[in-house]
Amino acid sequence: MSSNLKIIPLGGSGEIGKNCTAVIQGEDMLIVDVGLSFPNEEMPGVDIVIPDFTYILENKKLLKGIVLTHAHEDHIGALSYLLRDVKCPVYATEFTMAMIKMKMDEKMDIRSVDFRQINFRDKIKAGSLEFEIIRVTHSIPESGAVAINTEHGYVVFTGDFKLDFTPVDGKLTDIARLTELGTEGVLVLLSDSTNVERPGWGPSEKSVADGLRAAISQAKGRVLLTTFASNVHRMQQAFDVAHELGRKVAVAGRRMEQTLDLCERLKYLKVPKNVRIKLDDARNLQDDQVVILTTGSQGEPMAALSQMSREEYSRLRIREGDTILYSARPIPGNEAAIWRTVNRLFRMGAEVIYEGKTPVHCSGHAYQEELKMMVNITRPFYLAPVHGEPRHQHIYKNMAMDMGYPEHRIFTMADGLPLEFDENKGWLGEPVTCGRVLVDNGGSAGGVDDEVLRDRLSVANDGIIIPVIAVDVERGAIIGQPSLDAKGFSGSEEVLREAAEVMCDALDQLKPNDIKSVDHVKHTAADAVRKFVHRKTKMRPLVVPAIVEV
Amino acid sequence: MSSNLKIIPLGGSGEIGKNCTAVIQGEDMLIVDVGLSFPNEEMPGVDIVIPDFTYILENKKLLKGIVLTHAHEDHIGALSYLLRDVKCPVYATEFTMAMIKMKMDEKMDIRSVDFRQINFRDKIKAGSLEFEIIRVTHSIPESGAVAINTEHGYVVFTGDFKLDFTPVDGKLTDIARLTELGTEGVLVLLSDSTNVERPGWGPSEKSVADGLRAAISQAKGRVLLTTFASNVHRMQQAFDVAHELGRKVAVAGRRMEQTLDLCERLKYLKVPKNVRIKLDDARNLQDDQVVILTTGSQGEPMAALSQMSREEYSRLRIREGDTILYSARPIPGNEAAIWRTVNRLFRMGAEVIYEGKTPVHCSGHAYQEELKMMVNITRPFYLAPVHGEPRHQHIYKNMAMDMGYPEHRIFTMADGLPLEFDENKGWLGEPVTCGRVLVDNGGSAGGVDDEVLRDRLSVANDGIIIPVIAVDVERGAIIGQPSLDAKGFSGSEEVLREAAEVMCDALDQLKPNDIKSVDHVKHTAADAVRKFVHRKTKMRPLVVPAIVEV
Repeated sequence: MSSNLKIIPLGGSGEIGKNCTAVIQGEDMLIVDVGLSFPNEEMPGVDIVIPDFTYILENKKLLKGIVLTHAHEDHIGALSYLLRDVKCPVYATEFTMAMIKMKMDEKMDIRSVDFRQINFRDKIKAGSLEFEIIRVTHSIPESGAVAINTEHGYVVFTGDFKLDFTPVDGKLTDIARLTELGTEGVLVLLSDSTNVERPGWGPSEKSVADGLRAAISQAKGRVLLTTFASNVHRMQQAFDVAHELGRKVAVAGRRMEQTLDLCERLKYLKVPKNVRIKLDDARNLQDDQVVILTTGSQGEPMAALSQMSREEYSRLRIREGDTILYSARPIPGNEAAIWRTVNRLFRMGAEVIYEGKTPVHCSGHAYQEELKMMVNITRPFYLAPVHGEPRHQHIYKNMAMDMGYPEHRIFTMADGLPLEFDENKGWLGEPVTCGRVLVDNGGSAGGVDDEVLRDRLSVANDGIIIPVIAVDVERGAIIGQPSLDAKGFSGSEEVLREAAEVMCDALDQLKPNDIKSVDHVKHTAADAVRKFVHRKTKMRPLVVPAIVEV
Repeated sequence: MSSNLKIIPLGGSGEIGKNCTAVIQGEDMLIVDVGLSFPNEEMPGVDIVIPDFTYILENKKLLKGIVLTHAHEDHIGALSYLLRDVKCPVYATEFTMAMIKMKMDEKMDIRSVDFRQINFRDKIKAGSLEFEIIRVTHSIPESGAVAINTEHGYVVFTGDFKLDFTPVDGKLTDIARLTELGTEGVLVLLSDSTNVERPGWGPSEKSVADGLRAAISQAKGRVLLTTFASNVHRMQQAFDVAHELGRKVAVAGRRMEQTLDLCERLKYLKVPKNVRIKLDDARNLQDDQVVILTTGSQGEPMAALSQMSREEYSRLRIREGDTILYSARPIPGNEAAIWRTVNRLFRMGAEVIYEGKTPVHCSGHAYQEELKMMVNITRPFYLAPVHGEPRHQHIYKNMAMDMGYPEHRIFTMADGLPLEFDENKGWLGEPVTCGRVLVDNGGSAGGVDDEVLRDRLSVANDGIIIPVIAVDVERGAIIGQPSLDAKGFSGSEEVLREAAEVMCDALDQLKPNDIKSVDHVKHTAADAVRKFVHRKTKMRPLVVPAIVEV
């Protein structure tokens, strides 16, 4: 008798099934991707968000391996956190592996990690499961789908993909192998659904060269091009077009430099001879001979372009005549920060191109017809749209039903909800522990907990009031005059003075025995202040009594 | 000899010249619009942002009147704040005036305000200035441009406008009068530039009816349509289409109900007979007989639709079969909140339509060809693109130069920078006091100041640490054991314990004379804690010592 199969998305980021998924058959567990996500505006002070690994740790004994589809942060960025607590083989193809090592090297001693570099189509045993990585096209080199051979058929993760027939590196999606899988029998396709809202077929990455050529050839002075540090093919095209137009290329931004160095070394990037120059050497060239690749396309405050827009980047100053190309789409939530940067750049006299007539960006994710094509190639019995928010899953489902899939064969997965299969059917099972862990600079192991976040938000909204009280605990008496201190509170001095009086009145009511309990004093003071301030101002500042026992 | 003319944008919101502009000729000052803007993510706890009125107050004696172009919050929303400190006639046409009164009535005693309702084309004297309001089309009824007759020619503010030839109320832009002005001589056109990035000519508001009809006729159950509470023509079309399809219409959302009531009373809205019903009565109808108009299109947390998405709206529960139409564009910065709401609605089983094949929304602002048409009609000598961010001003300038305007006749205005004219030329003069005032629930007169905001942001990012210290000031001695309390701080207990030790060591170094100064004690403690915590964790929590003098 065959064992049940479970597929459990564990990302916790809201983009279902994107960051981390467990596949379990009998006593064997394989993890596909271990990525991070970025905080939203409800998570102040948080640097990154990683999956809650509780379920994986609880089932550590089953863990036979981790496989990474491609080198984007949302697929590999949390690996170093998971590897603090588990030990198992980590599988990836050459480029992805090199990027993982480069990034992890900054965070931990990577010699202890059991890295296993594999090739596309290699069949790898992980207990009773066998898997392979299959080449797809995407906005980073060497992206892969993952096919896992199970007792019930193949489970295929498309990974992030598009169907680009003219990729910059000439390496096409391995449709042959995906078709074979379809013939052998795909149980379920876990498909990228990020761009399911876009009708038709997306443009090829190569088409961006035309936009770059148009924009750069029209620029009178220096050109600064900003894109994601990992978008190697975009940068390849920038090098090629710059070379064609007689310009040299410098790089501003540490992560981008690192990535380019690595790609040149591994030959994933072919820079025409003598085109790449040092940033400081750009000064010695005429302005119209320079292209500068830079980070900051998302308005990230510490990225090079953002610093330039605030005149805080000492190695380069924006000036009139500069042209800045935004060769990246705004990730939802970043718009406000991006527009602030763009406005500052305009004010410095630069020309900023972010939505040209000839596009200088295209998406790395499949549009509707590409998504349908992937279904057509792999011919899965079940479908499970992932890599999207509930709205994407919903639209994908409608699309699949248009293709003739009955509703019961399309699963709307949710974080922590196992998609289970036996010989006869598939269903969504009982939830397992799953969630997100907020990590900030403090780096405390458990992350930023909900209480900390709640306190931060409450102070951020209305400030904090601190009752300062001295207590003689032995006698059970308040010493001296309790007072109030406030920070970030916008109520008037008058309100604070009155609140202090109300608090003193409340404390006066306490009996010596009550005062012997510091908690009782705290509670009484905080309660009095909180209620009074809310009544007077409608605000709810955090009230934190500071009690000195003397 | 004629006096110089000054036009000074005083909005301070980043959208130049949108919220509030002063026009001054000799001893006469006229204010065009007094609007508010909304806080961005760098202003936690702030409810609204209003202009800094210092310049107007300093020149109070010159003030001859305030004229309002239309009833959107970003043009009228700060009026009640300005009228606390100045008294002068307030001019607007009927609908705008009614909306102003309705909104201000909630905030102040409006009997003391010198409201003067006027008609389009009425010529009004304001000292040596004469002005009139001229009808334009926009996404709220009865919008106007303002033309001010000065000694140097007409100053024309387009206000927010589009050129809609089939407006829902049939009332066209008064191109005849604008053309006349052009013939009489327009000195400068201060033009809306919000949509200058969009090529071509925008769709008519009336075209939205097709989208509504398609979406509502396909809906199997209830339809909830969300739009801005002030978009009366959108709601008119929703009533008409609902009626045509045999549905009744209820309203969820206080502000929307108020606006509809007012519009019905003043006949700016014609609801077909027996179509509008009470929200609670919708329950007695079949689902496919109901349309509900609701607030919340921007993901505002307290709006009706947002509450419904959190199951907090007791009068209505979203359920499977409901269709929700987003008939509004996301205002930049609101995207994340909107998508969170949309995802929650999908999870509740609703169908959400926010980007249909047939549009259910169109913009109220002129596209490029409309903007050019306005220039062609009014034939101004100078141009000053306003109602946009620097990026819009920049693109408008390029557009105007394409039309043959020399660069020196196009002004890039900035908040607080007077655009001045004498008989021979125009120039940007010396800056005046200008800025933004952040207002929150606390409603303290001066608003939320920068220090308060800085404190809030620092706590929001890294939390707060409170050293609690008892001091015998007379003797110059620390009493008992100083300790640390923390809120919203994600560092470990260990770090706090060590920080407390470091602080105690630092306090131990103090001489009795030092300790007699509470400020000295505070400074020593805060400094020690701040430095230690930053070194250990890279975080910068706010450190606020609470000192008890005993």
